[in-house]
Amino acid sequence: LNSKLPTVGTTIFSLMSKMAADYNAINLSQGFPDFMPDARLIECINDAMKSGHNQYAPMAGNIRLREHIVEKVERLYKANYNPETEITITAGGTQAIFTALSAVIHPGDEVIVFEPAYDCYAPAIKLLGGLVKPFELTAPDYKIDWEMVKKLFTAKTKLIILNTPHNPTGTILTPKDIAALIKLTKNTDILILSDEVYEHIIFDNEEHQSIARYPELFERSFIVASFGKLLHATGWKIGYCMAPERLMNEFRKIHQFNVFSVNTPMQAGIANYLNQENIYPEISVFFQKKRDFFRDLIAQTRFKLLPCKGSYFQCVTFKDISNEKDLDFAERLVKDFGVAAIPVSAFYSKNPDEGTLRFCFAKKEETLQKAFEKLIKV
Amino acid sequence: LNSKLPTVGTTIFSLMSKMAADYNAINLSQGFPDFMPDARLIECINDAMKSGHNQYAPMAGNIRLREHIVEKVERLYKANYNPETEITITAGGTQAIFTALSAVIHPGDEVIVFEPAYDCYAPAIKLLGGLVKPFELTAPDYKIDWEMVKKLFTAKTKLIILNTPHNPTGTILTPKDIAALIKLTKNTDILILSDEVYEHIIFDNEEHQSIARYPELFERSFIVASFGKLLHATGWKIGYCMAPERLMNEFRKIHQFNVFSVNTPMQAGIANYLNQENIYPEISVFFQKKRDFFRDLIAQTRFKLLPCKGSYFQCVTFKDISNEKDLDFAERLVKDFGVAAIPVSAFYSKNPDEGTLRFCFAKKEETLQKAFEKLIKV
Ligand SMILES: CSCCC(=O)C(=O)O
Ligand SMILES: CSCCC(=O)C(=O)O
Repeated sequence: LNSKLPTVGTTIFSLMSKMAADYNAINLSQGFPDFMPDARLIECINDAMKSGHNQYAPMAGNIRLREHIVEKVERLYKANYNPETEITITAGGTQAIFTALSAVIHPGDEVIVFEPAYDCYAPAIKLLGGLVKPFELTAPDYKIDWEMVKKLFTAKTKLIILNTPHNPTGTILTPKDIAALIKLTKNTDILILSDEVYEHIIFDNEEHQSIARYPELFERSFIVASFGKLLHATGWKIGYCMAPERLMNEFRKIHQFNVFSVNTPMQAGIANYLNQENIYPEISVFFQKKRDFFRDLIAQTRFKLLPCKGSYFQCVTFKDISNEKDLDFAERLVKDFGVAAIPVSAFYSKNPDEGTLRFCFAKKEETLQKAFEKLIKV
Repeated sequence: LNSKLPTVGTTIFSLMSKMAADYNAINLSQGFPDFMPDARLIECINDAMKSGHNQYAPMAGNIRLREHIVEKVERLYKANYNPETEITITAGGTQAIFTALSAVIHPGDEVIVFEPAYDCYAPAIKLLGGLVKPFELTAPDYKIDWEMVKKLFTAKTKLIILNTPHNPTGTILTPKDIAALIKLTKNTDILILSDEVYEHIIFDNEEHQSIARYPELFERSFIVASFGKLLHATGWKIGYCMAPERLMNEFRKIHQFNVFSVNTPMQAGIANYLNQENIYPEISVFFQKKRDFFRDLIAQTRFKLLPCKGSYFQCVTFKDISNEKDLDFAERLVKDFGVAAIPVSAFYSKNPDEGTLRFCFAKKEETLQKAFEKLIKV
């Protein structure tokens, strides 16, 4: 058999979560909360099932959920979109990313990917015959030098992938980044895939620079979002894609043969819940408390904190502790100290091994405290 | 924008379901039940959410659900498979089909597709740069002449797609078909994708010829199955793929970047429910009653019944009534008579328009009776 993805193995998330389980370690690796979604939300899903929302949803998704998204986007990002033509509900953010890439990448197309990068972009691009053009960012601030990005542009450049708030680094795009991006892409046909799955987790009163705020960027963009991150239910696998109609039409051609439609009672229940409760203002406050709690603890260890402006990930360097490779150190941390983290080198195509780990702090304070009691021994 | 699928429009299912809604017609088009899943099943999903099954499931799926599948396959098909390496839970049968095709089709590969064919095969093959080699079957019995199939074989033949029980025709593969297929594929590298989403809906004491029964076929096969059809919950979008390890490894490489994992509480709840209740023996009986009820009604109209051995679809010819094209007649049936059906020509690449419609009888007897009262007027 001629493999389509000969170099792909198990994801680092599955690997580290399995190691965490095998060694009975505290799992701060894979990004998911260890606390419950709101009981009222669960009740809404149950009500949706009991009231008969159990057969195929419309291909583009539950219309009330799409209308809710439009209202939210209008309230938060001051822009108006069309729920009929510009939004499709997906089986999680990952399916939205895969489908958007499948809709536009032709063999030979080049895609600019900022590294460290979430691990699902590159394999999807390669599967489609596209070429990944990595642009490496480095600690501590992982700033993008847009003039240097421009040097990667060729006649084959099809797409730039953005991710803000950024996984794994917790950085965010600023209005300056956006201005540079607008200038750079103006008068080009370059498309944008903006992975904004952590859009509602943003700290220190910063403002999320959603592409939805910028019509001149939106017209060339797919925006990807996730209800799993918003609702503390990463396993429910409900997300969405927003794009202008000409791009959304192509997205849906793939979507309808990839999954056709998405879990009906979950969509209906989430729509009901979000129309009843305005949870958006609370979520950043909730996670900022966890970030601050965790940072205060880590500051007492030999790990050095990197900045964290959004997402539920905190990166640290361990250079002062060891000069091992990121993965080797992460494995030792599980086995010898009982805490699982993600080696940041796993997010680079060329594994630069800068001595950086990513911890997920979407955990109960009690869990973070227990992790601290182990990490202080390192 | 250079479309990846220039000829793809809205699926016939979305189209007809929308027409049914617009004209307030009885919807026997898209295949879904108009009755509820078991209340105890809904309770199991609710319990799964409340007991904390809300974060990412393992990439390959809930292990208890996979073990249940293995036990079921052993009981029904007398074969032993490995839940760790040979089963992956998917976001519905459609995602399993798309992912299996993505895992093995390279540009230029040829895929033999029997027509009429479910509408998600061809677009996926084309998206991957593959070539659809249609093999046309015709009413009334849609029998496969395997010697003629052999003539389609070339050095480029990568895959044959099977579908038993068959959508839209309700035919099933027989042991004779299987014997011919074994002979035909022996000493070739040809793979099989066996779409068995209606495996548990089979009539007149026939036996479902799952590829799982035949090790010499299974070793080259992806089998696709669906919990939506089994549990009267087509909108829950939980299915699975079964394949030997060398194929499943390739499948998972795509799966982990397409959706990563599948709805956690649905998987856990379905596993619990199916371990408590042995629903398998009842389901064919349940649907055979509906089939017989519907056939008895249709026999009183001017439509002519075709055979139906499995699935919840009944095909009829309307040649004695009209010589319109299938789609035109189907549209008129909605507008003038208030019943939506699927034109079978939609399942052929060359639209042969043989005067055939497909009705879904997964409906309450009351719904079927109401449809009859309209169809008798045609
Ligand atoms: C899909 S598993 C990975 C979860 C996640 O987003 C992360 O840990 O970065
Ligand atoms: C995915 S919508 C189509 C449902 C179905 O399987 C059918 O009607 O054939």
